Amino acid sequence: MRLSRYFLPILRETPKEAEIVSHRLMLRAGMLRQESAGIYAWLPLGKRVLDKVCAIVREEQNRAGAIELLMPTIQGADLWRESGRYDDYGKEMLRIRDRHERDMLFGPTNEEMVTEIFRAYVRSYRDLPLNLYHIQWKFRDEVRPRFGVMRSREFLMKDAYSFDLDADSARHAYNRMFVAYLRTFERMGLRAIPMVADTGPIGGKLSHEFIILASTGESEVFCHQDFLTKPIPDEDVDFEDRAGLQSLVDDWTSSYAATSEMHDEAAFGAIPAEQQLSARGIEVGHIFYFGTKYSAPMRANVTGPDGQDAPVHMGSYGIGPSRLVAAIIEAGHDDNGIVWPDAVAPFSVGLANLKAGDSAVDTACEDLYAKLNAAGKDVLYDDTDERPGSKFATMDLIGLPWQLVVGPKGLASGTVELKRRATGERETLSAESALARLTQ
Amino acid sequence: MRLSRYFLPILRETPKEAEIVSHRLMLRAGMLRQESAGIYAWLPLGKRVLDKVCAIVREEQNRAGAIELLMPTIQGADLWRESGRYDDYGKEMLRIRDRHERDMLFGPTNEEMVTEIFRAYVRSYRDLPLNLYHIQWKFRDEVRPRFGVMRSREFLMKDAYSFDLDADSARHAYNRMFVAYLRTFERMGLRAIPMVADTGPIGGKLSHEFIILASTGESEVFCHQDFLTKPIPDEDVDFEDRAGLQSLVDDWTSSYAATSEMHDEAAFGAIPAEQQLSARGIEVGHIFYFGTKYSAPMRANVTGPDGQDAPVHMGSYGIGPSRLVAAIIEAGHDDNGIVWPDAVAPFSVGLANLKAGDSAVDTACEDLYAKLNAAGKDVLYDDTDERPGSKFATMDLIGLPWQLVVGPKGLASGTVELKRRATGERETLSAESALARLTQ
Repeated sequence: MRLSRYFLPILRETPKEAEIVSHRLMLRAGMLRQESAGIYAWLPLGKRVLDKVCAIVREEQNRAGAIELLMPTIQGADLWRESGRYDDYGKEMLRIRDRHERDMLFGPTNEEMVTEIFRAYVRSYRDLPLNLYHIQWKFRDEVRPRFGVMRSREFLMKDAYSFDLDADSARHAYNRMFVAYLRTFERMGLRAIPMVADTGPIGGKLSHEFIILASTGESEVFCHQDFLTKPIPDEDVDFEDRAGLQSLVDDWTSSYAATSEMHDEAAFGAIPAEQQLSARGIEVGHIFYFGTKYSAPMRANVTGPDGQDAPVHMGSYGIGPSRLVAAIIEAGHDDNGIVWPDAVAPFSVGLANLKAGDSAVDTACEDLYAKLNAAGKDVLYDDTDERPGSKFATMDLIGLPWQLVVGPKGLASGTVELKRRATGERETLSAESALARLTQ
Repeated sequence: MRLSRYFLPILRETPKEAEIVSHRLMLRAGMLRQESAGIYAWLPLGKRVLDKVCAIVREEQNRAGAIELLMPTIQGADLWRESGRYDDYGKEMLRIRDRHERDMLFGPTNEEMVTEIFRAYVRSYRDLPLNLYHIQWKFRDEVRPRFGVMRSREFLMKDAYSFDLDADSARHAYNRMFVAYLRTFERMGLRAIPMVADTGPIGGKLSHEFIILASTGESEVFCHQDFLTKPIPDEDVDFEDRAGLQSLVDDWTSSYAATSEMHDEAAFGAIPAEQQLSARGIEVGHIFYFGTKYSAPMRANVTGPDGQDAPVHMGSYGIGPSRLVAAIIEAGHDDNGIVWPDAVAPFSVGLANLKAGDSAVDTACEDLYAKLNAAGKDVLYDDTDERPGSKFATMDLIGLPWQLVVGPKGLASGTVELKRRATGERETLSAESALARLTQ
């Protein structure tokens, strides 16, 4: 993408309304614009990151055997009356009347609707296990939305729902998502720690929050420091292997880890002092096993091998991709701007032409741009006539993993400069060597 | 994908509520489920088609120079009061009050919001031309939603918005989208005919609807039959070439083509009788040039090269991917079910195991499944123990372009059967030859 034809509205000033660093940087880097309180437009640079985050979420959901569908944003109130949550949900639910005065709502979550879909089609244990997920916009009418997309009213959520014959199978479904979540966050450059969690309005008894550590985190967390280095299951983990998955999950839940809500001072104190980790954390995922909480009142029954009908056992599994984008920035930034992990960077290379209009520099840049594109790299080519200092500042601010800088002085001696954003390391080398490095 | 692990709820009965063939087939093929009046969940098979349609739309928008962002579904009413459309829009707009009693709405379109984004950042003609698009769920509270996703209340729309300094440049922007639309529909196997259109509530003077012919179409259309065979611009069309694009558009608009609303009996009568085409059509896209209709009241001004400020010239360009899925089915089906064009088929190959549990058949199928997947093909492998007749009926109903049938009799003589859904042609050949055919 040529910057001269792109839409990247960088702000030179730090916006006053933004209280946390991810919000400030997303506004300054032209990723986001607030349209109403807690409601944001994703500008082109932000949309690219959101898409990359969603692609990773989707790949790992599919790998774990979940199947993608897409439920609508607007739901009928009757479904929620069936489960009993319509009145319980309170003012966070955005309630709507349509032109025929029917009660509708903008879905804050989809347990009811997916249960309705399930009961419409599935009758037998032979069609289980089943895990259906979607990635769709949700709305929660927070009384005081803030922190940008970290706590917005309209937000994107991946929510998966598992259906199983009994509690044992449902536990396997839970474990699949547990492992998929470890892999998902790791691929985005985040170390997420599963912590025993309260189940809140979703309900149920078994629940984990996945928390990343960041000094700007919303809550205090306590855990064994082993979690920071524990190896993540690799991509050929066998999701069909019940015992194998259970022992992975046992391993990941045997050490102490809890948010302040669930904190047990005595258990934490039993960890040797030098291995205790207390820090601030950001929730990036939440998984629940809630058995028959929805299937029983909504009569989502299946016939078992014994011919008996019983309510299906369910769990739900959420990740907020829009919130994740902010969390990734909270975990990766410096004084100059964002530092994207390679896997979710909006472009992998920023190519800076330090003297647009100079034919030697233009030619060298066009050649590099064409070759990087041909190699399948996402390149943002700064072909504008801004001065070099401003170009460097923009590149640092938007945080692309590699900066490839081409100027007349270097070219005269046959070199370009390659900078790694994360470390600040710079190297002077030939254009060919730079290309080889970036496309290896 | 193995059918035994997929979620494909085929209906054997024809649903009574569905009035048109695409709606019936989408329900029967397990693509869609109605959740409320005019509000649908896209089941996994439907979601795959929707994604493929969106991918083509996106590629052609990007090729034409449009830039993707993502605006939210919920908008503040104040923006619409600025443009004057809040009161005009009537009951089709889904109006919402949030918990703080602020007037909000579920966006039926985004002219106001994108104009707000534009004016927040762009000041100078040097940042033009600009075309911003998104693919997002919209809501229009139709008094009588029907025909499934052909006229639903919640629907997916790609809407692009162009910004230019003057009417001439805006015409070039319009022409870019005109040509992009021709290419977009052609790639989905549709022949769309641009017809002079009424501008309705969007406003403006220049507008074309893109109409495909289908006997079940919603409106009567009249055109020269040359439109059926006119060559479509190929993928290296130069979108920067103003004169070239204008002559392409002139060529596509010089012959008579109109919907019944804009029909001119005399002009149509001037076409030689044997070249007159009157038929029924379905609108699949609509483009508008409306000048300063939104930019003037909303004060979206740019400074020109002469230093003078003036309201920016705008156009908007819509395609409904959810409606397109239905339109593609209206244009491509037979008595047995859907006939997908290759480019948007949910899977390209259906592999039918006629005797699951037979080790020779299972082995042959697993081998074909692995090799087709390795070659990058989307394969739906029917590994269930349904009887062959039912498998054939399902394959025909869901309309995958190729059916690869593996049974014990054929295998005994070293053959499998390959069927082309569109023509019904069947061929008996070795597994190797079938693979070569499908992956060539």
